[in-house]
Amino acid sequence: MTREIYLDNCATTKPYSEVIEYMNYVNKEVYGNPSSLHRKGIEAEKLIKKARQSIADSIDVLNKEIFFTSGGTEANNLAIIGYLKANPRKGRHIITSKIEHPSVLEVFKSLQDEGYNVEYIDVDKNGIIDLEILKSKISSETALISVMYVNNETGSIQPVDEIANIRNACNSDTVFHVDAVQAFGKLKIKPGKSKIDMLSISSHKIHGPKGVGALYKTGNIKIRPIIFGGGQETLIRSGTENLVGICGFGLASEISQNNINSSWKKVLELNELFRIKLKESIEKITILSPQDASPYILNVSFADVKGEVLLHHLEEKEIFVSTGSACSSRKNRHSHVLQAMGCHSNIIDGAVRFSFCEENTVEDIKFTIEALKEIIPKIALK
Amino acid sequence: MTREIYLDNCATTKPYSEVIEYMNYVNKEVYGNPSSLHRKGIEAEKLIKKARQSIADSIDVLNKEIFFTSGGTEANNLAIIGYLKANPRKGRHIITSKIEHPSVLEVFKSLQDEGYNVEYIDVDKNGIIDLEILKSKISSETALISVMYVNNETGSIQPVDEIANIRNACNSDTVFHVDAVQAFGKLKIKPGKSKIDMLSISSHKIHGPKGVGALYKTGNIKIRPIIFGGGQETLIRSGTENLVGICGFGLASEISQNNINSSWKKVLELNELFRIKLKESIEKITILSPQDASPYILNVSFADVKGEVLLHHLEEKEIFVSTGSACSSRKNRHSHVLQAMGCHSNIIDGAVRFSFCEENTVEDIKFTIEALKEIIPKIALK
Repeated sequence: MTREIYLDNCATTKPYSEVIEYMNYVNKEVYGNPSSLHRKGIEAEKLIKKARQSIADSIDVLNKEIFFTSGGTEANNLAIIGYLKANPRKGRHIITSKIEHPSVLEVFKSLQDEGYNVEYIDVDKNGIIDLEILKSKISSETALISVMYVNNETGSIQPVDEIANIRNACNSDTVFHVDAVQAFGKLKIKPGKSKIDMLSISSHKIHGPKGVGALYKTGNIKIRPIIFGGGQETLIRSGTENLVGICGFGLASEISQNNINSSWKKVLELNELFRIKLKESIEKITILSPQDASPYILNVSFADVKGEVLLHHLEEKEIFVSTGSACSSRKNRHSHVLQAMGCHSNIIDGAVRFSFCEENTVEDIKFTIEALKEIIPKIALK
Repeated sequence: MTREIYLDNCATTKPYSEVIEYMNYVNKEVYGNPSSLHRKGIEAEKLIKKARQSIADSIDVLNKEIFFTSGGTEANNLAIIGYLKANPRKGRHIITSKIEHPSVLEVFKSLQDEGYNVEYIDVDKNGIIDLEILKSKISSETALISVMYVNNETGSIQPVDEIANIRNACNSDTVFHVDAVQAFGKLKIKPGKSKIDMLSISSHKIHGPKGVGALYKTGNIKIRPIIFGGGQETLIRSGTENLVGICGFGLASEISQNNINSSWKKVLELNELFRIKLKESIEKITILSPQDASPYILNVSFADVKGEVLLHHLEEKEIFVSTGSACSSRKNRHSHVLQAMGCHSNIIDGAVRFSFCEENTVEDIKFTIEALKEIIPKIALK
């Protein structure tokens, strides 16, 4: 029997078994509407409160600063659109980078269509945004800066503290939003200390269920809802709460927070082993993830190979990886992230993203290396 | 031991045990990201396809006309905002009724703030919208009409076929959206036959999970997303799909569709029994739900009683009911629905909503009547 090796943990993760059990328990036992006045409602509301506290604790903020959404995508939309709509006098200039997730880039595009003046900051070959350019672009008209914490294709870690400081120096009235979907539960995030005003997180990247996420928003920032209705989430996000999903998210957050150091250590070792073995075993590779990237992601380009062909050959051996991000993978287009990093199209064509979790093992890495050694010569075009 | 009698099924329902089991199975076995190119992704995508087909079948439409959302609230927002933003030349006049759910009324309010010309049509004492007024209000400038199918507080069923015909006669270019959250799975809905262009439905009102819903949209209508990103749901609704929730919704839809006739029959009998017993047993009541309302809802006002006080006394006997809708219940304000129906404030103060499902029994009704007989004299103010 072939073992299954899941190395696509940045696309989504397998939920923790404790999370699955807890969701099943809540689904069976607690079915009230959290807005109902009777005990059935209050029981449900209590579980949501508990989950909110778990998430707040995990990033060292207040529970009232956490707003549940249907996922990271909605959190990004709510932060950016919600802030701009609530603060029309703060300026019409908004800044992001060229390597953001589509849930930020597409929002910026829609705002550009509405007449906002939109700036996409360049990144260097490591995928790090150019702080000098950023500094030169912030003006009194700049309402918002949105930068991702960890890039989902390469793992590049942005210097968010420095970005916040630059913002403070250039225009302290500019709001700083961070898409932390790939950082949450892996890096230690403290939005207060880092002077981040809004921060998006997602459940299904940390072994929680899909379809739930949250926005952290510091108390003094006003945002307007993008979904209107019954006024749930203290008027910020209407709609009956995804009770089972929120409960699963809360527990996943607790577990990942408890394991944050040991997971990081283990994944870092796997990543380092993989880098070494790759260099030893496969000719003509280019490691696109910088050395100081998040260890959870390793983007590698194989010369003379089509990433998608390699993906399917690995799949036959029960090894699951990705080319670029899942959200863009069906569109069959060149990675905007690798393009912005200055990669040649041949390099982009051969790129595969391996993304890890603490449940991966040294054996997984060794098996994958053996598989690559077997597959690459077969599929290389030259 | 006291039995639990849940008569708040319009606020939310207890998930079917088959739904809970299926969700648990999916949570354990299928964790891929539906956008991933490999088999793990395709397995997840297949389950979503199956759920989409179940829901499409249940309202006799094509699967490509169903778009999953995070719930009924988001579906209402997406339909109304999405249509208007995509069709700015269709006019700036929009029509709804005075008795809609907050997820429609608050959207209209936000559009009014943006400069839309907004019309709230009156209803009669049965909560039915005035078709003559509607007719007189539709003009060449009318972009959209949004009317709910079944009112969530009284069960009043709107004449949606007639509304669609009036629309066709007055301005065939006006789009007709129906909030069918309280109708879906209970009434037989056929948007095609009824000439409804867009229709919102929710999972947790039909014994499915909270946090998932869908918008039906006929093929020739263009809408713009309200959440931008990776382009899921054929570009209409971005964000990684709520896999487990969608699967639960699909199965709940299948089950409720299979049982639609027997459930209706059973609930109608319970409703009729409750009406008879109430009139026999309790003095000075006013039944606010019209005789031809959805049998799933019975709104009754008890003279000289505060609805909320009655709610808590019933709760002590493990009977769970509601005053007004769950979404508005925390705001402690007078029901806008009952006000629009011309109810005096004393009547509104004493109103309690009993809402049923097919799992309620004749014994539940009898027990509730006995409880009311005991409680009302104790808490009546006169």
